[in-house]
Amino acid sequence: MSFNTFGHLFRVTTWGESHGPALGATVDGCPPGVALDEAMIQTWLDRRKPGQNRHTTQRREPDAVEILSGVYEGRTTGTPIQLMIRNVDQRSKDYGNILDTFRPGHADITYFQKYGLRDPRGGGRSSARETAARVAAGAVAREVLKTLAPQVKITGYMVQMGPHHIDRTRFDAAEIDRNPFWVPDAQAAEDWARALDQIRKDGNSVGAMIEVVASGVPAGLGAPIYAKLDTELAAAMMSINAVKGVEIGAGMAAASLTGVENADEIEMGTDGPRYRSNKAGGILGGISTGQDVVVRFAIKPTSSIHTPRASVTRSGAPTEVVTKGRHDPCVGIRAVPVGEAMMACILLDQLLLHRAQTGATGPVAEIGACAPE
Amino acid sequence: MSFNTFGHLFRVTTWGESHGPALGATVDGCPPGVALDEAMIQTWLDRRKPGQNRHTTQRREPDAVEILSGVYEGRTTGTPIQLMIRNVDQRSKDYGNILDTFRPGHADITYFQKYGLRDPRGGGRSSARETAARVAAGAVAREVLKTLAPQVKITGYMVQMGPHHIDRTRFDAAEIDRNPFWVPDAQAAEDWARALDQIRKDGNSVGAMIEVVASGVPAGLGAPIYAKLDTELAAAMMSINAVKGVEIGAGMAAASLTGVENADEIEMGTDGPRYRSNKAGGILGGISTGQDVVVRFAIKPTSSIHTPRASVTRSGAPTEVVTKGRHDPCVGIRAVPVGEAMMACILLDQLLLHRAQTGATGPVAEIGACAPE
Amino acid sequence: MSFNTFGHLFRVTTWGESHGPALGATVDGCPPGVALDEAMIQTWLDRRKPGQNRHTTQRREPDAVEILSGVYEGRTTGTPIQLMIRNVDQRSKDYGNILDTFRPGHADITYFQKYGLRDPRGGGRSSARETAARVAAGAVAREVLKTLAPQVKITGYMVQMGPHHIDRTRFDAAEIDRNPFWVPDAQAAEDWARALDQIRKDGNSVGAMIEVVASGVPAGLGAPIYAKLDTELAAAMMSINAVKGVEIGAGMAAASLTGVENADEIEMGTDGPRYRSNKAGGILGGISTGQDVVVRFAIKPTSSIHTPRASVTRSGAPTEVVTKGRHDPCVGIRAVPVGEAMMACILLDQLLLHRAQTGATGPVAEIGACAPE
Amino acid sequence: MSFNTFGHLFRVTTWGESHGPALGATVDGCPPGVALDEAMIQTWLDRRKPGQNRHTTQRREPDAVEILSGVYEGRTTGTPIQLMIRNVDQRSKDYGNILDTFRPGHADITYFQKYGLRDPRGGGRSSARETAARVAAGAVAREVLKTLAPQVKITGYMVQMGPHHIDRTRFDAAEIDRNPFWVPDAQAAEDWARALDQIRKDGNSVGAMIEVVASGVPAGLGAPIYAKLDTELAAAMMSINAVKGVEIGAGMAAASLTGVENADEIEMGTDGPRYRSNKAGGILGGISTGQDVVVRFAIKPTSSIHTPRASVTRSGAPTEVVTKGRHDPCVGIRAVPVGEAMMACILLDQLLLHRAQTGATGPVAEIGACAPE
Repeated sequence: MSFNTFGHLFRVTTWGESHGPALGATVDGCPPGVALDEAMIQTWLDRRKPGQNRHTTQRREPDAVEILSGVYEGRTTGTPIQLMIRNVDQRSKDYGNILDTFRPGHADITYFQKYGLRDPRGGGRSSARETAARVAAGAVAREVLKTLAPQVKITGYMVQMGPHHIDRTRFDAAEIDRNPFWVPDAQAAEDWARALDQIRKDGNSVGAMIEVVASGVPAGLGAPIYAKLDTELAAAMMSINAVKGVEIGAGMAAASLTGVENADEIEMGTDGPRYRSNKAGGILGGISTGQDVVVRFAIKPTSSIHTPRASVTRSGAPTEVVTKGRHDPCVGIRAVPVGEAMMACILLDQLLLHRAQTGATGPVAEIGACAPE
Repeated sequence: MSFNTFGHLFRVTTWGESHGPALGATVDGCPPGVALDEAMIQTWLDRRKPGQNRHTTQRREPDAVEILSGVYEGRTTGTPIQLMIRNVDQRSKDYGNILDTFRPGHADITYFQKYGLRDPRGGGRSSARETAARVAAGAVAREVLKTLAPQVKITGYMVQMGPHHIDRTRFDAAEIDRNPFWVPDAQAAEDWARALDQIRKDGNSVGAMIEVVASGVPAGLGAPIYAKLDTELAAAMMSINAVKGVEIGAGMAAASLTGVENADEIEMGTDGPRYRSNKAGGILGGISTGQDVVVRFAIKPTSSIHTPRASVTRSGAPTEVVTKGRHDPCVGIRAVPVGEAMMACILLDQLLLHRAQTGATGPVAEIGACAPE
Repeated sequence: MSFNTFGHLFRVTTWGESHGPALGATVDGCPPGVALDEAMIQTWLDRRKPGQNRHTTQRREPDAVEILSGVYEGRTTGTPIQLMIRNVDQRSKDYGNILDTFRPGHADITYFQKYGLRDPRGGGRSSARETAARVAAGAVAREVLKTLAPQVKITGYMVQMGPHHIDRTRFDAAEIDRNPFWVPDAQAAEDWARALDQIRKDGNSVGAMIEVVASGVPAGLGAPIYAKLDTELAAAMMSINAVKGVEIGAGMAAASLTGVENADEIEMGTDGPRYRSNKAGGILGGISTGQDVVVRFAIKPTSSIHTPRASVTRSGAPTEVVTKGRHDPCVGIRAVPVGEAMMACILLDQLLLHRAQTGATGPVAEIGACAPE
Repeated sequence: MSFNTFGHLFRVTTWGESHGPALGATVDGCPPGVALDEAMIQTWLDRRKPGQNRHTTQRREPDAVEILSGVYEGRTTGTPIQLMIRNVDQRSKDYGNILDTFRPGHADITYFQKYGLRDPRGGGRSSARETAARVAAGAVAREVLKTLAPQVKITGYMVQMGPHHIDRTRFDAAEIDRNPFWVPDAQAAEDWARALDQIRKDGNSVGAMIEVVASGVPAGLGAPIYAKLDTELAAAMMSINAVKGVEIGAGMAAASLTGVENADEIEMGTDGPRYRSNKAGGILGGISTGQDVVVRFAIKPTSSIHTPRASVTRSGAPTEVVTKGRHDPCVGIRAVPVGEAMMACILLDQLLLHRAQTGATGPVAEIGACAPE
């Protein structure tokens, strides 16, 4: 079996293979009356598009999206939105040599074990190409968020590439869109470019860490106990190819903290409670606090590398695998817009769930609004 | 809204509050004909039970489980299994002082913001007491796994408490059940006991890291793309109270690796492919490889501490919170059996999904079984 | 596998067997802040309760409900509500003779074929006793409806028992609660009592038709295409034991109509569009029109009868079955409150879904509110 | 919100509007390794295709299906199958006159009330054109059934058109494919052609009753209590446009029967239990008995008719509606292949659910296989 859908009310089903005729997303549960056209979606797809600089795969895909349903005269109708992206630049012959063997670290072997057959062209369904469909769906979510919670702002960026970390003291959000790494640190962008050139020259690849921050999220989003906001975000990010870990706020480092250190103390701001720190990453008990929602996820290095690695063939013979073809030396780079898209989809879904409960998108009870107890 | 159910085919809904009359789990989709009685479940509940040593809360709950449905003459019938645990040792007065204020780092405030009211007794639904229901459901999953995949073995243990890590060179699985920390390192158990005594004396608490390993998992489990085995595990673990991060295999450290380092090279063993390393944590492309499935998750320190922290009241007045009552100084300790239970539930669910696809619980295609290509 | 849950946002999972320790409903997704106590639920359970007159089974069950979670100080908290009803008057020995054979027309045989074993006591999970849990859940739904759409009124009644139909010209809603048949026709009540006495004396049983009408339902409820209001109602009613058919509005008779006859013509009332007829049963395109929602469902005669019927034993030997024990000669009677309960649950679920879309419970566009085109 | 997905494991999401660029079905959860190509699907689409004779709409749609994903080298891969059908023969100007008014008996008004806007071209999403996507999905289900349960045979046919019923004594399955009404009675086909010509000439339309029978269904399919086989079939059929009632076996007539009449007596056949009658329609307790599964559903007359009917405009002014455009005078005719498709999808879904439980597709316990008790 497979489950290619996520979301409770805003439900996205992605479909399509790397080298099949097309891929896309079926978006069901989108509220009606929201302005939407292909150009709005294309903007976001263009950010993820391969081949835009020397640091990503040289496959040339326009990733042109076509809206096949659910929009009438420029507005969503409340019916399913079908988003299709035709594949254009397939070079399936590049993959001939992996038909009968398995790239170490790649889903080749498990798809074969699970399904008994696989579409080997470009990794088939397990290709990162699937994430284009998520970005398209995320673009729809963003347009809906604009109408329901216009103050929400979602920003993703790289914070680590292999051993290289950003310097948080140099953090400059304006830099993110100015470099091919989506890194908020101009110096890092320069250093990483050199480092990645070397990685590529070595026939190697490298891992990455992405951070996605959502500001302006109203307090009260989240659906305890098993669709908590952090649970949903963990699932959303872990479902992206090559992700091996997800953390919220202090994250894995929370294991090292004491309760005194971890307690985000609360004071009263002019417009509600204000927290003195954000170890919680904007989520307590699975419900948003109103602070920035902060998620990080780790992307493993691309498994398709030019360096030979030991493997076996389908018939069990030992072999060495060298992957030709056009690959991202750091697939994490293009994961930035994907992480943003997943954040947009999850926030919208939770916003709709919350609105089902309360009729509104904000908190039910305002602190400070009650009479003194 | 709330969603208190997880699982696709083996579906668990937990219910109940910390200080309400009872709590429990409704387990639907359990295969019929499996031997099950209360004693089998009690064994696992007893591991998680509070008050067993000085390192956990002194609340005295027998956590005695009652099977209300779904079992006839000692066997499951295929109908829903209702597991109920009566609360016995409530001391709700301990919580009087947090009725109108919010513990920093606790779900008090967000439940109030989301629902407009909350059951303040013992944290209500957001209490770690909810995890007793998960352990009970996990015990059912274990009994089913015994019949469907008896070779599966699930082991959880602590690998970190605050700044203290286990020494992997001293790893001894036999130690796990011999100390109150479920730690596979006798020396660590001794050191941690001293450290936790001090933490408790300081009116403080501390975080922890848990590792859960499942061996014997057949290759082929997982339901790409959005119910991948790692996605499901990430959601399952993140849904546990106080968890702030989840990682699989190399996890967050994968961001630091190169492709050459990360590729788990494959060779042919006597009974199928064998991997020379397990950076993947037993999962590639969301599907199990047959290696050990390795998950780690970070638990933040208990937010109910005796040290005063700044907060606000419902009416917005500044205040200081000191939590009396009986609390775990390291709630991570009791999360070990909970992590194991979630692993059991998720593996069973995926096993059933896989059996729906194939009629069997093992891989569809065996490597080495094909004629040479 | 089994699926014991219905609903998208207001989700009800029923559990329990006829002669097990208890049965109940786990209600998840109930909005917070709604007044709820056991007495409110008991009122509705008492209507369905067996043994209240000579026309229903003489099993004496108080059907006393206990709220185990989800309610604090008389209000729902937004967390799962566990409703438990202890079984009290089991006489399992009555069923000894069907342990190894199968009642014709009963689920005995299919449960055995599906699960390989069954709880034979009182039909186990397939007993109409399961419907007590639905009535309890429906009572919760009614309380929520009272706050969200107080104008909604749900009324169920019998319109047919065997060959006996009500006379619609004598329809008097006030009669419904005055007779044991929930029949809106005093004369029918009298005639049917005599007829059913004879049926019972003959060791026979008889079928029934129930009609459930909801008035005051706002236009716009329904979630096309596969969770349409009529689809949901059809599933809800068909899921009740012994139901063999469901129809909306003109129903099966729509097959006989012409388009001219079937078109419910529309005129403008003082407060919106008004329909001159209601062939649609209040639903067009799966969405409520604002007219009365009208559902009918047929209940087959009880299969546990005193007249011998040919059957086989588990080992395949021919036999004759006569069911002793206490049975409803017309199980349709007690299905009236069950049908009402299902209507309440489905309407609430759709109302919440609609509110997720729009933030409100009424139609998005009012006819007559637009400027003339 | 909208829900355009049905199925638990074999999940079908349909999308698309009558006059949009395309429509289709996203089929997730299809087992891998099943032979599938466009021609196999086209066969079934061609049966439903409009314009094949004078009794259906004259819209000329080739309904040519394109497989965009999920199939590799002629076999399903286990990943989502995207089926797209381009719309070709739109004549949206035909609908200009209903932009601002509402056809009585049509979803025009409720879509407007629910969503505040609608795609008026050809009924948009509420058009019967959506059912082409179901037929495509059903064709996939049939191919899978062929491999899992090749003995299953699904046959749909009309049994009533307006006041005209088939004569069951003349029932001849071979006739079904020989006439435009899919009617198993040659005489009826002739009479109905004349009757429908008259209806069309009168600018009127007419309702219909469809029966769908599945033979060869193994005993044991069905997932009590809320995903029972009959529940699923009721929902599936009621979700089809214009359906107003659904019944199983004796159906609504069960209300008239006594228990003695309704009990399908059981005897031992050479290969298992055999029933002397089939009042149950092949389903007891929501689980298949192994007998023919028999479903009937009523289709209301097309609401787009040439006879003027009273209605209102969006601004509330009284008006009369006459629908021009090309419409089926009896939309029930083309519902026959749709009902078959839904039956195929539901049976496959239940077969997969059953296989998850048991590893096989047949009953768990065979009657007569046990030692004598």
